[in-house]
Amino acid sequence: MNQFIKKYYDALITPSGGGGAVTVLSPATVANIVCGFDILGFALNEPNDEFTISFSDEKGVTIINDDEYNLPLDSEKNVSGAALLALLDETPDIKGFQLISKKNIKPGSGIGSSAASAAGAVVAANYLLENRFSKEDLVRFAMFGEKVASGVKHADNIAPAIYGGVTLIRSIFPLDIVSIDAPELHVTVVHPQIEVRTADARQILKQRVLLKDAIKQWGNIAGLVAGFLKHDYDLIGRSLEDVIIEPVRSILIPGFDEIKKKCKEAGALGGGISGSGPSIFMLSQNAVAAKVIEAVMKEVYNNMGLAYHTHVTTLNQQGVKLISA
Amino acid sequence: MNQFIKKYYDALITPSGGGGAVTVLSPATVANIVCGFDILGFALNEPNDEFTISFSDEKGVTIINDDEYNLPLDSEKNVSGAALLALLDETPDIKGFQLISKKNIKPGSGIGSSAASAAGAVVAANYLLENRFSKEDLVRFAMFGEKVASGVKHADNIAPAIYGGVTLIRSIFPLDIVSIDAPELHVTVVHPQIEVRTADARQILKQRVLLKDAIKQWGNIAGLVAGFLKHDYDLIGRSLEDVIIEPVRSILIPGFDEIKKKCKEAGALGGGISGSGPSIFMLSQNAVAAKVIEAVMKEVYNNMGLAYHTHVTTLNQQGVKLISA
Repeated sequence: MNQFIKKYYDALITPSGGGGAVTVLSPATVANIVCGFDILGFALNEPNDEFTISFSDEKGVTIINDDEYNLPLDSEKNVSGAALLALLDETPDIKGFQLISKKNIKPGSGIGSSAASAAGAVVAANYLLENRFSKEDLVRFAMFGEKVASGVKHADNIAPAIYGGVTLIRSIFPLDIVSIDAPELHVTVVHPQIEVRTADARQILKQRVLLKDAIKQWGNIAGLVAGFLKHDYDLIGRSLEDVIIEPVRSILIPGFDEIKKKCKEAGALGGGISGSGPSIFMLSQNAVAAKVIEAVMKEVYNNMGLAYHTHVTTLNQQGVKLISA
Repeated sequence: MNQFIKKYYDALITPSGGGGAVTVLSPATVANIVCGFDILGFALNEPNDEFTISFSDEKGVTIINDDEYNLPLDSEKNVSGAALLALLDETPDIKGFQLISKKNIKPGSGIGSSAASAAGAVVAANYLLENRFSKEDLVRFAMFGEKVASGVKHADNIAPAIYGGVTLIRSIFPLDIVSIDAPELHVTVVHPQIEVRTADARQILKQRVLLKDAIKQWGNIAGLVAGFLKHDYDLIGRSLEDVIIEPVRSILIPGFDEIKKKCKEAGALGGGISGSGPSIFMLSQNAVAAKVIEAVMKEVYNNMGLAYHTHVTTLNQQGVKLISA
């Protein structure tokens, strides 16, 4: 930690705006879950961003970056900032916040980096405000952050980040979020070090799909939701099939087909593109399988000579987590 | 019962082919359940067809109609017959069956009349065969009956008729049927006395749908499945929305929009077209609401001067039911 940042953390010990400081861990998330494009997502126990928030005498949101990503300091252009500004619109008694942002989830990785920024900031603020807002309110605020990140208000990363576990966004306008109780799941993620812009990943999708493909897709979605709720691992595995989005988007991800095939052969229940990529995730029933899957992923990218990061983790049932207040 | 038919029932008391006779009730079913086109269905406790089956010395399937519908006696053209012929293909030790068919579910009503014929016949035969086949096998045989009825093998009526309750057909090739545990539900059905041919109802559908509509639809399907499994009546109600099929098909059903609107105002959780119509079904949380809904339906069609039948019943959790053996 450099001296400049340290000054801010130290200052939190004697905050001038009343109240103390709150620090949270905000999780990475996997949107879509293969067949559930735009409606399903789940939270991971690793990696997490860390956000420390306190009241501020200055109006609006003051952002301090405690990482190497050089994210915008202008709160309207900053994902956390935009989410907090939306919250401030409904807290006329609060002048402003100071947010120290320490990101570990690499922007553009496809595991919900922007959602972690947006969700973490508003959940932290809500702790500071003694839980004035509902989770649904917080999703509403955080979506302003997603709009800054990708131009579109979507909640398939934000909802699991805030609610934890697997979440269904049945409808976004009006907002209807449903928690889907899921069994213990182990997750392996590989992030090939290439860039896939969310906007590009969206643009290559066809505006119209064959009804017969849509029917196949919603059979799988229904199967996946039933598999989670019935804790039926086989059904989860069989339902992790995407005939609409994956065939188009996977072209943007080197080695996708090979990784998917080999991971399933090695015992993964199934998996696919995380969000709009480039990360690929695989679900497994136990920790050993998840480690084996990691080895398979590494081997494919080592053979291709492509740089990558991996995460071996579990389904996060809690969402954004308070670590100090 | 006329003397001709009576002779057959009497003959069953001393069957010549070994074994006795088995009689089953085979239920009406509602396919699609609004948003779940081609993948969801549920069984009703009323109305039911009645099938009595016994072994026969004659090869193949001998059909005796004990009703007024004059359904084909040629087993290959008869829905029950075609299903039984498919079963006979896998029972080389059995020469043939004699089936007495007493239909109460009017063909063409949209509440799974053909599925009741196919499912009832093969489940009855399976009792006679001391449950030699699995439920999945029986669905496979019964789909040959559906092919005779509509030209297409589909299982969204057959599966609930055989399994009972709410069923998901995640995939038809390969067959993957998932029972969805649902809470107590009351069902009101109105059958306006007009004809909608399944083939016509299929033909008017567009081959391509907007991706954004498909996303809305699969959000509702996921919500409906979660609503059933979580026994969340509100979520079931919110999810009973169809943005793809209903707007096209409802044009074929007089008074559809008015009935739907008034039934929901009167307390129905929701509902829509049963299968490909013309019947309309509504789900309610209790018996009183289901009766009120019936009155609303009657009033609309009385005002329009259109003949109709109604059924007020409940979700059938059992499927085809053995009544004597």
